[in-house]
Amino acid sequence: MRKGLFVTFEGPDGSGKTTISTNVYQQLLTEGYDVIYTREPGGIDIAEQIRRIILDPKNTAMDVKTEALLYAASRRQHLIEKVLPALAEGKIVICDRFIDSSLAYQGIGRQIGLDAVLAINEFAIEGNYPDCTIFLDIDPLEGLSRISNRHYRDRLDRETQEFHMRVAQGYLEVLSKYRHRMTVVDANRPVEDIVKDALVVILKRIESNV
Amino acid sequence: MRKGLFVTFEGPDGSGKTTISTNVYQQLLTEGYDVIYTREPGGIDIAEQIRRIILDPKNTAMDVKTEALLYAASRRQHLIEKVLPALAEGKIVICDRFIDSSLAYQGIGRQIGLDAVLAINEFAIEGNYPDCTIFLDIDPLEGLSRISNRHYRDRLDRETQEFHMRVAQGYLEVLSKYRHRMTVVDANRPVEDIVKDALVVILKRIESNV
Repeated sequence: MRKGLFVTFEGPDGSGKTTISTNVYQQLLTEGYDVIYTREPGGIDIAEQIRRIILDPKNTAMDVKTEALLYAASRRQHLIEKVLPALAEGKIVICDRFIDSSLAYQGIGRQIGLDAVLAINEFAIEGNYPDCTIFLDIDPLEGLSRISNRHYRDRLDRETQEFHMRVAQGYLEVLSKYRHRMTVVDANRPVEDIVKDALVVILKRIESNV
Repeated sequence: MRKGLFVTFEGPDGSGKTTISTNVYQQLLTEGYDVIYTREPGGIDIAEQIRRIILDPKNTAMDVKTEALLYAASRRQHLIEKVLPALAEGKIVICDRFIDSSLAYQGIGRQIGLDAVLAINEFAIEGNYPDCTIFLDIDPLEGLSRISNRHYRDRLDRETQEFHMRVAQGYLEVLSKYRHRMTVVDANRPVEDIVKDALVVILKRIESNV
């Protein structure tokens, strides 16, 4: 029943996912495409309730596997209530982060294991992988310094650095696993150049869909 | 690190799980065993928060797979924070419902599939299956009439009956899969007889553990 196009944006923190994906969304809208922009939990009430548990700073006792199951539950509900209905109506869905983030962050970053996190996410998405994923490529420590200040990189403690280096390694594994749907875009460039590259990929994918 | 004994009680609604398991717990306590009684979410804050989402009657849009992931998340946190620490201290843990309920209710009752629900629960419990499971055997419709009134059985709508008949079928599949740890006890008898039988099974298991 999927007639639309499901596009996701991935990359380390500070790679510019939100800036680039909202710009791409605006461009597609301007060019007359039937497109929606979303990110989990995407205003879906049940998914919001789940996210509040994940993000509540008081929940310090949360086990990493509990967290991974909650992310998968939130993803499931957002997919069922928002993404799949839009795709069924033939819309383009631009989604900021999806399954690949869990594989990289929970699977490798939190060291649960990629295959284990993949298993619970396959349960959640039931084959509804993105048609096209734009990976914004940036050095993970450079990304972190971008979202803080330029001296941040030096101040990062070893644990934080090691976590983000593992996430970067996780994304490399994800990229090699899903080569057919993922496109790497160099994110060390001006926003307009990155947006242009992302649009070329998406428009090509739309043409091949027709 | 598991030195204690992990005992679960399973069975259809109205089979007397709570009555029997609390009685068994009291008996073991009286006889001087180091034993705790629990049931998910078991007073674990994060697990309680997850349960509130599952049970909130306003959450009518909840997908069955979202629900199954939330049950697995709640189980994980209760296991990590309460069950495993007690077992590590050498305690007997009596738990009212555990993984087998999800296999029967979500897997077969909600028709997600036993293997799919097993996969996310194996992620959650990481091999920490019960050492011993008492299955309270009763006709599922008889069980339902017990927890309501004796005419309830006639008033059950077809959908409810079919759901509970599927759950019963699910439990049969679970029983044949985990024969080594499950004991069927006839629950169509006075409470004291059922408690006595359950205690014999558990005490035998304790002896073989020493």
